Amino acid sequence: MNSIVQEKGKQAVEILKEMNIDLWLTFVRETSAGGDPILPLIYGHDLTWHSAVIFSKSGERIIILGSLEAEAARRTEAFDEILPYDQSIKPVLLETIDRLNPSKIAVNYSVNDVHADGLSHGLEDTPYRGLLVSAEKIIAAVRGRKTPSEVEKIKQAVETTDMIYKKAFEYMQPGMTEIEVGRFMWDQMDKHGVTASWEKAGCPAVNSGPESKVGHGGPTEIFLERGHIVHFDFGVKQDDYCSDIQRLVYLLKQGETKAPEPVQRGFDTIVKAVQAAMKTIKPGIPGWEVDAAARKVVTDAGYPEFMYGTGHQLGRTTHDGAGMLGPKWERYGETPDYLLEPGQVFTIEPGLAVPGYGYIGLEEDIVVTSNGAEFISDPQTELILK
Amino acid sequence: MNSIVQEKGKQAVEILKEMNIDLWLTFVRETSAGGDPILPLIYGHDLTWHSAVIFSKSGERIIILGSLEAEAARRTEAFDEILPYDQSIKPVLLETIDRLNPSKIAVNYSVNDVHADGLSHGLEDTPYRGLLVSAEKIIAAVRGRKTPSEVEKIKQAVETTDMIYKKAFEYMQPGMTEIEVGRFMWDQMDKHGVTASWEKAGCPAVNSGPESKVGHGGPTEIFLERGHIVHFDFGVKQDDYCSDIQRLVYLLKQGETKAPEPVQRGFDTIVKAVQAAMKTIKPGIPGWEVDAAARKVVTDAGYPEFMYGTGHQLGRTTHDGAGMLGPKWERYGETPDYLLEPGQVFTIEPGLAVPGYGYIGLEEDIVVTSNGAEFISDPQTELILK
Repeated sequence: MNSIVQEKGKQAVEILKEMNIDLWLTFVRETSAGGDPILPLIYGHDLTWHSAVIFSKSGERIIILGSLEAEAARRTEAFDEILPYDQSIKPVLLETIDRLNPSKIAVNYSVNDVHADGLSHGLEDTPYRGLLVSAEKIIAAVRGRKTPSEVEKIKQAVETTDMIYKKAFEYMQPGMTEIEVGRFMWDQMDKHGVTASWEKAGCPAVNSGPESKVGHGGPTEIFLERGHIVHFDFGVKQDDYCSDIQRLVYLLKQGETKAPEPVQRGFDTIVKAVQAAMKTIKPGIPGWEVDAAARKVVTDAGYPEFMYGTGHQLGRTTHDGAGMLGPKWERYGETPDYLLEPGQVFTIEPGLAVPGYGYIGLEEDIVVTSNGAEFISDPQTELILK
Repeated sequence: MNSIVQEKGKQAVEILKEMNIDLWLTFVRETSAGGDPILPLIYGHDLTWHSAVIFSKSGERIIILGSLEAEAARRTEAFDEILPYDQSIKPVLLETIDRLNPSKIAVNYSVNDVHADGLSHGLEDTPYRGLLVSAEKIIAAVRGRKTPSEVEKIKQAVETTDMIYKKAFEYMQPGMTEIEVGRFMWDQMDKHGVTASWEKAGCPAVNSGPESKVGHGGPTEIFLERGHIVHFDFGVKQDDYCSDIQRLVYLLKQGETKAPEPVQRGFDTIVKAVQAAMKTIKPGIPGWEVDAAARKVVTDAGYPEFMYGTGHQLGRTTHDGAGMLGPKWERYGETPDYLLEPGQVFTIEPGLAVPGYGYIGLEEDIVVTSNGAEFISDPQTELILK
């Protein structure tokens, strides 16, 4: 039924073999309130009572869950054993672990990776305490290594994003407010049956001119004016997978036929920074090297460095996976040290401000290949003039 | 802007005074992937970088967050201090805690209450370790004690649910499949601009006759036939608040003018069980007493006991809050021992099977008052015959 869940379950077993971990235990309850971010990939539905999804190196795919949800689990066709219970998960869970007799159990906690950190505090009180290791590397691999059908879904989301962008570029006019353009794009999302890649209030971000605050605040009543850079940050979630793309428009002043030099120079710098990141990407290098390459182009051109990472992974969530293309700042933990792997999908999104004109930021979506990277988005290399 | 967030923030300060806890710290990151379930109530947006929402007994309402999100925080008008950062949350967070100088810090971990269990494992490694206590009682109170505007929102969701139910009862006919009726209700939800109270695939549940599996599996290709009990479990999320209601229809056989005796007796038993729960509810008693009252009506009438709790709280999620109306089974932890409080909204949903006819389950939504309880839903006391 949900082929991604089946694919990822099989992939998980292979990853356990590769990492030589006997058992991977995902333990959840009431996921509608507090879900484990790995669950949509390995199960695909909410779980209500205490529930355990177990994969073993020896190939078992087991789910233990409340009896009322056993039928939903059966329909996934993603498990060899479905073990329902009524009053307490404890007997069947302990019996199952004893039967599998692991010497190492990976559970979902992680300082670095929010996507591997689904486990809630209370679960540490267990007789298996001594066996527990973090599942963060497993989860980073299961989330990060996109299967071909996952990449295809992201491509579809990117295409829809492109289409909506094109319509928005036609629709926008000096004299409109940011929020008018935002509303147009929200309507387009409804028309195409997609939702916002991140929280809708800030997706799209539309920033016109130097006074508009760049960030996650969403479009405002600020007017689009001639002489403004209009910066967009936008993506959609389509069929459970996300896109995330930034685009730039310059609104020509009366008599102008091209952007003023400071705007063009800022734009060219960011295009170069994207290309520098792209050239650096290949499997086996840490993400911070890619960040450093893009960052250097910006600072070498005399601009202040952007205060965020050059790129993040993209998938079922806008910020997906563990490793990122970021600087070694405290707030990124060890995620810039993760090594790139084929199949990972990243954004590349350097930025800079052009005083008096607005914000220049581009964002492209790319997939890591066996020896480099390919664009998923159609990269913007020329300013859109309007 | 979001008055609920403002209301709940002020309520939180009062609750800290009442519980004599100096500081309540909610620490999150990348909430689009792994959110703390309290965040929608006390902030109302996603937070991306490491972020802290702090309430103090002395009345401070502080948020520390990534600089790109400071503007969104300002717009909530729910905080006295907004402290943005770029590279690391550590300096500003430590400085803030030192300044407030608490002797007790409540953080969000809980064995019993998933809604109070937002904290991820990695955060325990802190110099404040000795001060940390569970925020579960604070969160149970903030979530559980619905403000009047919260109760009003639930009422609106219940009214929309009633309206969709009435249309579905008119629409449904013997010879249709469960999924046809389900699709009709999904269309109605779209028309009314509401979403499913829980995962859409299982909301509504439509169970026709004795072969249809009751649970969260969703409607199937089973046909509605004369002589079937048709059982519905359905609710909507409207303006962020949920309803959750079960209803019963009996499809009369040729020549029948009323339901057969076993169906009517089962239905009357469940109506009585709902009433017994309702009569028992008042502030200060533990939830298990309410469960026991409803359960006794069912077992006294000679039916096997239902294998789930009589009721759960209802709010921003279908299963909301901590305390529940449940039996003292291991899987419910201590949640049946929580004492009822005015303003809590519960479901009451006993059930039983009638062999050969189908499943009998009713579910009403109620609010605990200062001396008892009031129905929010219009309770079903007569079988719908069709």
